[in-house]
Amino acid sequence: MSQFKLRQLAVFGVGLIGGSFAAALKRAGAVERVVGVGRGRPNLERALELGVIDAIAQDAASALQGADLALVAVPVQQTERVLAQIAPHLPPDCVLTDAGSTKQDVVTSARRALGERIAQFVPAHPIAGAERSGVEAASATLYRGRLVVLTPLAETDAGAAALVESAWRACGARVLRMTEQHHDQVFAAVSHLPHALAFTLVHMIAQREQAQELFSFAGAGFRDFTRIAGSSPEMWRDICLANRTAIGVELAAFQAELSALASHLERADAQALEQLFESARSARARWLHGVK
Amino acid sequence: MSQFKLRQLAVFGVGLIGGSFAAALKRAGAVERVVGVGRGRPNLERALELGVIDAIAQDAASALQGADLALVAVPVQQTERVLAQIAPHLPPDCVLTDAGSTKQDVVTSARRALGERIAQFVPAHPIAGAERSGVEAASATLYRGRLVVLTPLAETDAGAAALVESAWRACGARVLRMTEQHHDQVFAAVSHLPHALAFTLVHMIAQREQAQELFSFAGAGFRDFTRIAGSSPEMWRDICLANRTAIGVELAAFQAELSALASHLERADAQALEQLFESARSARARWLHGVK
Repeated sequence: MSQFKLRQLAVFGVGLIGGSFAAALKRAGAVERVVGVGRGRPNLERALELGVIDAIAQDAASALQGADLALVAVPVQQTERVLAQIAPHLPPDCVLTDAGSTKQDVVTSARRALGERIAQFVPAHPIAGAERSGVEAASATLYRGRLVVLTPLAETDAGAAALVESAWRACGARVLRMTEQHHDQVFAAVSHLPHALAFTLVHMIAQREQAQELFSFAGAGFRDFTRIAGSSPEMWRDICLANRTAIGVELAAFQAELSALASHLERADAQALEQLFESARSARARWLHGVK
Repeated sequence: MSQFKLRQLAVFGVGLIGGSFAAALKRAGAVERVVGVGRGRPNLERALELGVIDAIAQDAASALQGADLALVAVPVQQTERVLAQIAPHLPPDCVLTDAGSTKQDVVTSARRALGERIAQFVPAHPIAGAERSGVEAASATLYRGRLVVLTPLAETDAGAAALVESAWRACGARVLRMTEQHHDQVFAAVSHLPHALAFTLVHMIAQREQAQELFSFAGAGFRDFTRIAGSSPEMWRDICLANRTAIGVELAAFQAELSALASHLERADAQALEQLFESARSARARWLHGVK
């Protein structure tokens, strides 16, 4: 239906995120050829078997030859290293994008690694669950109806941003744009802080002498509340480091809220407690029912 | 299979909890007759239609006539009022129990309301989700495989505690005993604190000027983390008031953990962050896999 069609997509890191992007573009008929590159040879071979990629490239130079779009989908801590490998070989007509969960750090890395080629780079964050990983988990439908945030820079070429937006739309995603600073503030509040709280609660209980007993009384509420504490420690270490300022601000705000709660408890303030709980319950219900 | 059989069960408050207890005992053939009493006449009539109860009693006196077990399953704030109505009419051979989520407050209320009849009272807390409410949500299988905590007192008659234990086992539940103080400490950590945190996070975000935008970026992780913030504000106000000392202790402990986390973030301490997250992730995985 769309006339959007890429000649060659180069995917650096063919895991859940990169593999699903490739698979979705293929399914949409929006790419002729996908070349995969990465450090895990068996994973790349599996991606080839699954038809997620059409060829394995030995290095950045050969992956980028003839590419009109390159996606970097590696753990955020490796992004700068991979961008530096890409920089000398990036064709002038090839757009470069990423899929990292934090954006200010990626922008800093990209400025350092890409220099003047920064105009070709479009920072992006697809909001898609990543509880499973590896190309085996990749799916052509992962991004359907999901949101992708682009944080183009002042220097970003308008055509480059439009191309990345078209590619994500071809995957079935909705696309929004904001600054990288705003992105990191928003996700500190609605994603990074909740992850930090869930990890911290489980950690607190696990440290106790009676941890076994406590866990034995934890029920479905505890299980759902802490589901996100089952996420990758390495990934969340990197996200926390990359976005530590904004997360610190949210953490301080949350601690102030907890101090208010502690005061309600001390004073046995029934009305304040009920107002707090009711405000939360109704806001959550409005959110879930889409009455925003 | 079991020879356990009640002559007459009186249920004060025929909602999800009381209705499911009656339905489960009936299903098990462990009760001859169930009498329901409560303030919501339409709800009692529905319970009668559904066969959850066999008769509606107009008052405590008639409900208790001929009863060998009485369950009080009303909101905790109403417990003392209902116990006071029961006290003058409680037959000497009738065991009395409750289903409240907090136990020290119930014990205090029971001592006040029951006086010397306290020996007939067995405080209990069935650990079962209560996202829905009312007799319509009642189910004969709600307690299968679930845990019920009994907190018998020094004065509690041993036979009374054994009878309540047998009744819960007939419902398919597992039964454990502990002191009411220990119960309230355990649930402050694994249930009350997580609820308070989920309510507080949603409240914090809902108060912001950009609340709508923030919620629009909240995903599946946020939804699960805050699911328990969809619980009844009145019920959680009462639980927080009833157990405010133990919850206050847990809240202070959690705030200390958050301060440590804030310090890791400030110092960009990658190792401390990863250790915290890894400790949480692995403890949660052990819990879920039952390797306790």
